[in-house]
Amino acid sequence: MNQEKKHPSLERANSRRKQVLDAAACCFSRHGFHGASMAEISKTAGMSAGHIYNYFDSKDAIIAAFVEQNMERVSNIMHDLAQSDDPLQAMIDDVEKRVQECLDPSIWAVPLEIHSEASRNPKIAATMQAADQRSRGQLFAIVTAAREKRGLPAGEDLVEGRINAMIAMYQGLAVRHVHNPGVLNPGLVDGVRTAIRALMLGE
Amino acid sequence: MNQEKKHPSLERANSRRKQVLDAAACCFSRHGFHGASMAEISKTAGMSAGHIYNYFDSKDAIIAAFVEQNMERVSNIMHDLAQSDDPLQAMIDDVEKRVQECLDPSIWAVPLEIHSEASRNPKIAATMQAADQRSRGQLFAIVTAAREKRGLPAGEDLVEGRINAMIAMYQGLAVRHVHNPGVLNPGLVDGVRTAIRALMLGE
Repeated sequence: MNQEKKHPSLERANSRRKQVLDAAACCFSRHGFHGASMAEISKTAGMSAGHIYNYFDSKDAIIAAFVEQNMERVSNIMHDLAQSDDPLQAMIDDVEKRVQECLDPSIWAVPLEIHSEASRNPKIAATMQAADQRSRGQLFAIVTAAREKRGLPAGEDLVEGRINAMIAMYQGLAVRHVHNPGVLNPGLVDGVRTAIRALMLGE
Repeated sequence: MNQEKKHPSLERANSRRKQVLDAAACCFSRHGFHGASMAEISKTAGMSAGHIYNYFDSKDAIIAAFVEQNMERVSNIMHDLAQSDDPLQAMIDDVEKRVQECLDPSIWAVPLEIHSEASRNPKIAATMQAADQRSRGQLFAIVTAAREKRGLPAGEDLVEGRINAMIAMYQGLAVRHVHNPGVLNPGLVDGVRTAIRALMLGE
């Protein structure tokens, strides 16, 4: 609905920013966050070393943009759930899609790199935690309302605990992929669905 | 039962190795795997830079020792489960203990660092994957036998999928801790137990 007309130079800047982010994702996955220099990122993006600073003034700023990007993806999922007549059933129906996403390196590789960096870098940890809190807040409201509508227990601790267990399982799948490249066996989606059904629809 | 008498010099070597591993864990968590040098690790361990090479010839060898250490911890858990009269119920009863372990940085910080490195280093990935496969194999045998004894479906894909979903949830909790330091809310253990009960005892 909110269709703003973008200024051509703004569009150009956005496209340049995306070019830098794609290059950074590539460099981070090759050498890790610490091993990738701004010089290498600008070279991979096909820009001069000075030019890149017009868009991002540090590697931390690039990381913040990735967190933003991931939050947008999660926000879209939340938006669709909130529109659904039966969000709890929708979460169960969507398990296969979510599992596929969690096992897609183009989605999880950079977040894991950020994660590792966040355990050492309080500024990045704060950015990541704020994004996480916002997403959890949205999910919390959706699940609480949907469980109340079905007459299921919907106390704050209960809903918070179930949501955290569910997110842990999805986030853990991305981690497991490195430990067990064969994790996507024919029973995985059923297994995850069994757990999500119990978490969302169980007393 | 298998009480071997250790040679004093072997005991000394083991204690030195542990000294290096403790120092390495500390350096990795401060600067990451790449940022920590063998020189810094030996200094932290209170050894000369040359001395450390008597115990580990590279950082990769240190990582392999950590994987070994973690596998021993998991093997002990498997051993206790295998001895239990009712391993499925034991897994449900142990949820609180397992959740506490997953949220303990002294247990998960190094594995996450290794994980991040494994996504770039095929040798480390292979070590980690072999350890994971061994643990999953033990768990698979325990869960299959216990479900058969209870007359529950115990097909290979079903058991494999349920085990992977369970491990993903536990491993994901360690990841979530960085995203959400307040993850251990009063409902978390109940949430995880709800999911594990469905995974292990559900049709």
